[in-house]
Amino acid sequence: MKTYNLALIPGDGIGVDVTDAAMEVLGAAAKGRFAFDTTSFPWSCEYYLEHGRMMPADGIETLRGFDAIYLGAVGWPATVPDSVSLHGLLLPIRKAFNQYANIRPHRLLAGVEGPLKAEGFDILCIRENTEGEYSGAGGRVHEGKDNEVAVETSVFTRAGVERILRFGFEQARSRRGHLTSVTKSNAQKYSMVFWDEVTRELAAEYPDVTVSHMHIDAMAAKMVMAPQDLDVVVASNLFGDILTDLGAAIQGGLGFAASANINPDRSAPSMFEPVHGSAPDIAGKNIANPIAAIWSVAQMLDHLGEAEVSAAVLSAIEAATAKGIGIRPGLNTTDEITAAVIAALEA
Amino acid sequence: MKTYNLALIPGDGIGVDVTDAAMEVLGAAAKGRFAFDTTSFPWSCEYYLEHGRMMPADGIETLRGFDAIYLGAVGWPATVPDSVSLHGLLLPIRKAFNQYANIRPHRLLAGVEGPLKAEGFDILCIRENTEGEYSGAGGRVHEGKDNEVAVETSVFTRAGVERILRFGFEQARSRRGHLTSVTKSNAQKYSMVFWDEVTRELAAEYPDVTVSHMHIDAMAAKMVMAPQDLDVVVASNLFGDILTDLGAAIQGGLGFAASANINPDRSAPSMFEPVHGSAPDIAGKNIANPIAAIWSVAQMLDHLGEAEVSAAVLSAIEAATAKGIGIRPGLNTTDEITAAVIAALEA
Ligand SMILES: CC(C)[C@H](C(=O)O)[C@@H](O)C(=O)O
Ligand SMILES: CC(C)[C@H](C(=O)O)[C@@H](O)C(=O)O
Repeated sequence: MKTYNLALIPGDGIGVDVTDAAMEVLGAAAKGRFAFDTTSFPWSCEYYLEHGRMMPADGIETLRGFDAIYLGAVGWPATVPDSVSLHGLLLPIRKAFNQYANIRPHRLLAGVEGPLKAEGFDILCIRENTEGEYSGAGGRVHEGKDNEVAVETSVFTRAGVERILRFGFEQARSRRGHLTSVTKSNAQKYSMVFWDEVTRELAAEYPDVTVSHMHIDAMAAKMVMAPQDLDVVVASNLFGDILTDLGAAIQGGLGFAASANINPDRSAPSMFEPVHGSAPDIAGKNIANPIAAIWSVAQMLDHLGEAEVSAAVLSAIEAATAKGIGIRPGLNTTDEITAAVIAALEA
Repeated sequence: MKTYNLALIPGDGIGVDVTDAAMEVLGAAAKGRFAFDTTSFPWSCEYYLEHGRMMPADGIETLRGFDAIYLGAVGWPATVPDSVSLHGLLLPIRKAFNQYANIRPHRLLAGVEGPLKAEGFDILCIRENTEGEYSGAGGRVHEGKDNEVAVETSVFTRAGVERILRFGFEQARSRRGHLTSVTKSNAQKYSMVFWDEVTRELAAEYPDVTVSHMHIDAMAAKMVMAPQDLDVVVASNLFGDILTDLGAAIQGGLGFAASANINPDRSAPSMFEPVHGSAPDIAGKNIANPIAAIWSVAQMLDHLGEAEVSAAVLSAIEAATAKGIGIRPGLNTTDEITAAVIAALEA
């Protein structure tokens, strides 16, 4: 039997709760089909308070040998500033392993009622995941003084923009053939104009894909007014971040939004994590919705080549939600939802 | 009778249609109460094609003497790139006249059905309007080559951040006492961490205002999941841009979203313009919704000190929408909606 080596980083808050749930489902899904070895790393804000860093200096090297990384959520702002915790753990992993394609599907699961009157949408967001507005380049001058200035520089490389757009075009090709590229080139005349140019260049290579160019503001409105018109959406790191929380919202909430940080050339492990954060207020209470986390397991299985098991996990999630399990906050405990998915999987 | 001198810049596309409508309503509202002189400037993409610039070199100086500026919409991407047209007209006016507070109200007008199931929200977005992500600082290196890099730098000054936050705190004080400050300080560790710090400093001066800090992604989700929890929202130039299109969406569409670019110390004219763009596809067809444009007239009147007439215009808009006029695209022509508002105003 094939064995996968998985690195687990439950992280903070409900990251721990949903990782437990996700691993239970993974165990049930694997039974009789493949084996997996998990190594759990306690890297988190608690770890930071003890060690002065979010992960050891050789953390990245430690992770490199695994087949995949599964991460719960990172952040506990009451004790560690988010800027420190995220730049110390989640963001460096995405960059170091060239997980440049962050894939986030948005549709309503059976039985789930979203906040919109609109229902029949099926959007695949492809978010650039390694550069752009998250480059971490910048600084502060005259700190604390009246004349203080803070600058933050977005850096876009041609290679970086090209590869994510290509990825988007390929996805569009395998779906409904439509790609929406999201920028803000009316206001950001260097970075976003560049992105638009690269999009136009590549479009010539994909005559079978229709391309729309939209500004992020109009796109945010569209996600709410006419989400059914969208197929594949490709966006920069920041715009993808915003649009996918919006995508999560229209699919019923952050508890339903899965995410895969993919290194498409497989030169390093990919990482799977729900879109939601650590939600300190509900941590450890057995009330977090594990569906996003379980869906992310399905994405991981698909990436590992276990397409059939992946599909089975997704069907099991939907069998549970179709019965009304986990479709609204407060309706079921984390354990109940997990058990319902496992029951459907074993049925 | 008092006379106001207004500069009109209808601009492009439906900017022209809705400016006509807005001025008709202004005429009806003014009758017997005050006079106004309008000077119309043809600055637009058409003007650009003829003169090689969006406005004359002394355009800003020409506008400086007016009591207020009314702008329709700018942009005709088929002939002039948006990055050129917007950086040549709209954005420099906002900056040159220190119109640092962009005020955008979001609520459902009587009779209008939004895309959300939620209804009872009343949000006032305060957008920083002169710096940040719209600074226009950046460049491209190795243009057109494989190793090309584009950079775009957001610049935040303490004075710039402080004044918009103060404006937000004051607005919150005069409304329901709640301010939500929107950043992305978990990813942007210079600019957004700085903004958060200034927010915390100022919060101490406004003990009567409760403050929430939210990341832009979570905030976008909240606008859709629980807009009724929001009161005053204050955000950077880009985040405010995104959130106010989202605000427009939840209030039923871009046709309903008004906007005031305010210079609070009145050292230069303020500018009033609907949030929507020039919508080339429906330009000149007498089908654009003029309500956002008319609502912006109400904001202008309020700014000019005509609070009573301003309130009358807003009531007239709502009297029309309450009767079902203009509440859905395609239902009524621009002229019909304008006439209905004027009839209500004169009733
Ligand atoms: C926690 C945060 C840094 C992260 C991001 O902005 O990428 C999260 O919002 C996400 O979407 O994965
Ligand atoms: C046209 C564009 C530059 C402008 C902006 O981004 O400010 C518009 O979207 C707005 O919201 O007023």
